[in-house]
Amino acid sequence: MIKPALPKGTRDFAPDAVRKRQYLFQTIRTCFELFGFEPIETPAMENLSTLLGKYGEEGDKLIFRILNNGNILPLAQQAKDNRELANLLCEKALRYDLTIPFARYVVMNQHQVVFPFRRYQIQPVWRADRPQKGRYREFFQCDADIVGSHSLLNEVELIRLYQLVFSRLSLRVSIRINHRKFLQALAECCGNPSWMPVITTALDKLDKTSMQQVEAELQEKGLPEHALHLIREYMDLSTQPADNRLQSVLELLKHHPAAAEAVKDVSFVIEQLKNTPSAWASVDVDFTLARGLDYYTGLILEVKSLEAEMGSLGGGGRYDNLTGLFGLPGVPGVGISFGVERIYDVMESLQRFPASTGMATQVLWLRMDDALLTQVLQYAMELRQEGIATEVYPDAVKMDKQLKYADKKGIPLVLMLGSREYARQMVAMKDLRSGVQTEVPLDRLKETIQLQLAVR
Amino acid sequence: MIKPALPKGTRDFAPDAVRKRQYLFQTIRTCFELFGFEPIETPAMENLSTLLGKYGEEGDKLIFRILNNGNILPLAQQAKDNRELANLLCEKALRYDLTIPFARYVVMNQHQVVFPFRRYQIQPVWRADRPQKGRYREFFQCDADIVGSHSLLNEVELIRLYQLVFSRLSLRVSIRINHRKFLQALAECCGNPSWMPVITTALDKLDKTSMQQVEAELQEKGLPEHALHLIREYMDLSTQPADNRLQSVLELLKHHPAAAEAVKDVSFVIEQLKNTPSAWASVDVDFTLARGLDYYTGLILEVKSLEAEMGSLGGGGRYDNLTGLFGLPGVPGVGISFGVERIYDVMESLQRFPASTGMATQVLWLRMDDALLTQVLQYAMELRQEGIATEVYPDAVKMDKQLKYADKKGIPLVLMLGSREYARQMVAMKDLRSGVQTEVPLDRLKETIQLQLAVR
Repeated sequence: MIKPALPKGTRDFAPDAVRKRQYLFQTIRTCFELFGFEPIETPAMENLSTLLGKYGEEGDKLIFRILNNGNILPLAQQAKDNRELANLLCEKALRYDLTIPFARYVVMNQHQVVFPFRRYQIQPVWRADRPQKGRYREFFQCDADIVGSHSLLNEVELIRLYQLVFSRLSLRVSIRINHRKFLQALAECCGNPSWMPVITTALDKLDKTSMQQVEAELQEKGLPEHALHLIREYMDLSTQPADNRLQSVLELLKHHPAAAEAVKDVSFVIEQLKNTPSAWASVDVDFTLARGLDYYTGLILEVKSLEAEMGSLGGGGRYDNLTGLFGLPGVPGVGISFGVERIYDVMESLQRFPASTGMATQVLWLRMDDALLTQVLQYAMELRQEGIATEVYPDAVKMDKQLKYADKKGIPLVLMLGSREYARQMVAMKDLRSGVQTEVPLDRLKETIQLQLAVR
Repeated sequence: MIKPALPKGTRDFAPDAVRKRQYLFQTIRTCFELFGFEPIETPAMENLSTLLGKYGEEGDKLIFRILNNGNILPLAQQAKDNRELANLLCEKALRYDLTIPFARYVVMNQHQVVFPFRRYQIQPVWRADRPQKGRYREFFQCDADIVGSHSLLNEVELIRLYQLVFSRLSLRVSIRINHRKFLQALAECCGNPSWMPVITTALDKLDKTSMQQVEAELQEKGLPEHALHLIREYMDLSTQPADNRLQSVLELLKHHPAAAEAVKDVSFVIEQLKNTPSAWASVDVDFTLARGLDYYTGLILEVKSLEAEMGSLGGGGRYDNLTGLFGLPGVPGVGISFGVERIYDVMESLQRFPASTGMATQVLWLRMDDALLTQVLQYAMELRQEGIATEVYPDAVKMDKQLKYADKKGIPLVLMLGSREYARQMVAMKDLRSGVQTEVPLDRLKETIQLQLAVR
C-alpha cells in the first residue's frame, strides 16, 4: 500500500479555496469582457520546439518535458549528454507561460483573427522551479493583450482595466509606470547602447536591494564612474515631486530622442488618466521600474499592494514583435497580467473575500419519517428549481448526527417534515445560526426560505 | 524558423468555442451546487505511483509521464527494458481521470472532509490514446460523487441531477439503469461466478455489435450452451414491457438472492422517480447495460441522446471501496460523470447553444475627433461600470476599417462622437444589425443602449 502524497510544489484545493479562486477569476473575467477582451484557451502540452529557446537558458531547464510514448530504449542508449537525451526522449512539454502559446495561436490563426485582437487567457502553467512559500510548480496565469495596434489608447485602457479590477476586489494598489526608451536613452547617455540590458537587470533588483548594491553591481560589470554618476542621478529622479519628473528626466538625458519619445508617451497616458482618478489604484511614474529582461520595448507597468508586503500583483507593457518568433513579423502588442496566486494570498490575509463566494448548500432536509420520503425529495427538487441549493440527508441515522453534518458544512437552514406537521401542511424549520425553530406552511416554503436566507 | 503547430490530439479554443464551453460548464456547475455538491481541484501532475496499476495494463501505457529534471543520463544507461527506463526517468505523470485523484484526496484529507462528502470536479485529463474524430489527448471530465453513504437516495438524487442538467441544456436523453448484481446473479445461474467479467465485457459491446456477435464471443470464451441460452433470454428481457421486467428477471434468475437485492434497489429508485417524470430525460431499466469493467458494485446508469447518433453522454454507478486503494477501506460511494466534450458536440450539431453565450463586446466607440478622445474614454468607462461591454477603437484609421472591425467581431452598436454632436450633447449611434442610425442624448446613453440591446 502506497501512502498517498502530492508531487512537491503542487496543491489540492478544498471547496472553500476553489470557491474563492472562482470568485477571483470570475471578477477578472467579467472586467476583461467589459473591455471587449475575448477568451482563448490553448492546450497544456505544446511541442517542445515551440517552447525551447524562448525563456533563456535558465527557463529551458525549468520546462517540464513529457516522455514520448512507445519504444524509447534505443534512443536513450545513443544519447551522449543529458540535454541530448532529454531532447531525444521528449517532443512535448507543459506550457511554461501563456504568452508564447498566444503568439503561436495568433500566427496559426492569423487569417481568422480580427485585428486589433483583444484576447484574454486564464489557465495554469507549469515550471520546475524549486518550490518555496508562495511559489508553486503549477499555478495560474491571467493575461490580457491587444495585438495589431500601435495606439497608446491601449495602454490607457489597460491601466483603467487594472483600476476596475482592483476596485472590484477592494484592494488598494499603486500602478507604477515607466518606459523602456528611458532606459535605452540612459544607456546611450552613459556612452554605450549595449549597456542597456546590464542597467535594466541591475535596476530590476532595486525592489529587493539598495541603490548602493545596484551601483556595486554596475561597477563590477565595468561601467565607468561617469556612467555610475548619471545612473545615480537617474535613480534619484523618482524621489522628486511628480510634476517635475518628466521635465527633469528629459534634461538629465540631454533631450535624447528616445527619452523625448518616452516623455511624450508617458505624458499622454498620465493626461488621459488624470480626469478619472481611482480611489483604489493610483498611477505613479517610476523611472527605476525595469520589468526584468523581457521583450518589452515601450511603456511598462507594474502593480503593487499598498496594504500588504508582497511582490508585484501584476505587470505588463508594450512589445514590438512577439509573433516574429513564429514567422509573422511586424505585429505590435501590449498586454498586462494579473498575479492571481499572489492576489489570492493578499485577499486572504486582508480578509477581502466576500462572506459568501459561490453557492454552498443553503437548506438541508433531515431524513425523518420515511413514509414522507417521496414528498421530501419532491419538495427538495422544487426548491432547487427556484435556485435554492438544497440537500436531503441520505442515511437514516440519528438526528444529532444529521444536525452535526449541517453544522460542519455551514448549512444555515434545516427542514424537518414529520407526519404531524405534514397533516397540517406545515414543515418545521430551524435556523442553525440563531437556533430558532419555527413552523412554515408548505405552500409558503420557498418565500420563507428566501427571506430567512436574506437575514444575516 | 519553426512553422508553429499543435501536438497531435490537442486543440486550441477560439473565443466562440471558449464561451460555449463556459456556458456548458457553468450550467452543470450551477446544478451541482443546487444539489449541495462542493468543488475540489487537484493538480495536473500526480506521483506516478498514485496512478500506475489503477487503469489496467492498457491504461498504464496511455499515461503521459513527465521527465524528471536533473541528471538523467546515468539512469538511462542502466535500464534494461522500456518499462524500467520509463519508470526510472519519471516520477510524475499527468492525471488520467478525476476518480483516482479524488480517492487520493479523500484519503489525504479524511480528517477534514465532512462525510457523506458530496464533491464535484471539472478539470482536464490527459491520455495518450490514438487521436481520432471526437477523441482527444486532452479533454475535460466532469464528475459528481457522494462518498460515505450507503443510501439509495443518492442514486435517486443523482438521476434527478441528470434530469435537471439535460433539461437546462434542452437536450432530450434517455437514462438507462441496471444493477451489477443482476450480472452477478446471471453468472452464478450460468454455473460459474467467475464468468461475470466475461459476460460483462461481452454485454458492454452490445451497443456496437449484435446479439449474435455477443453470443459468438461468449461461446469462444468457453461458455456452455445452457449458459448461452440463459444469457440470450436475459438479453431478450429488455424488449419486454417495462411493467413486467423486474418480475421476469427475478423468475429467469431463479430468485437468486443477488437478483432479489437488485430488484429491490431498482424498484425503489423507479418508484421515487415516477412521481416527477422529466420531459427531457426518461428513465428506463435495461438489463444489458454493463458499463465496462469498472469498479461498480451496485446500481449503474448511462445517458444517451435521443436526438443525435453519439456514444454515451454520461454514466456512473455505485462502488464499494474506491479509497481502499490508498488505505482507507469501507467507504462506499456513488457517482456520475458528464461527457462534456460529447455533450458539446451534440449541442453544437443540434444548435442548442443560446444565441448569446458569455459577454462579447456590445458597443464600439469609433475613433473620430481626437479633441474629444478624453471624453470618449470616460463615457466608455461609465458604460462598463453599468455592465455594458464596451470598446474604443484604438487606432486613428478610416471609418470604413473601424466599421469592418465591428462587423467582423459581431458588435451590434457603434457610437460616433463628433464635435457638432457634442456641442448639442448628443452622440450618433448606429445599429449594425439594422443599419439604422440615430442621435442619442449623452445623458440618456446608458438607458438607450440597454433598450437597443434588448431588441433582437
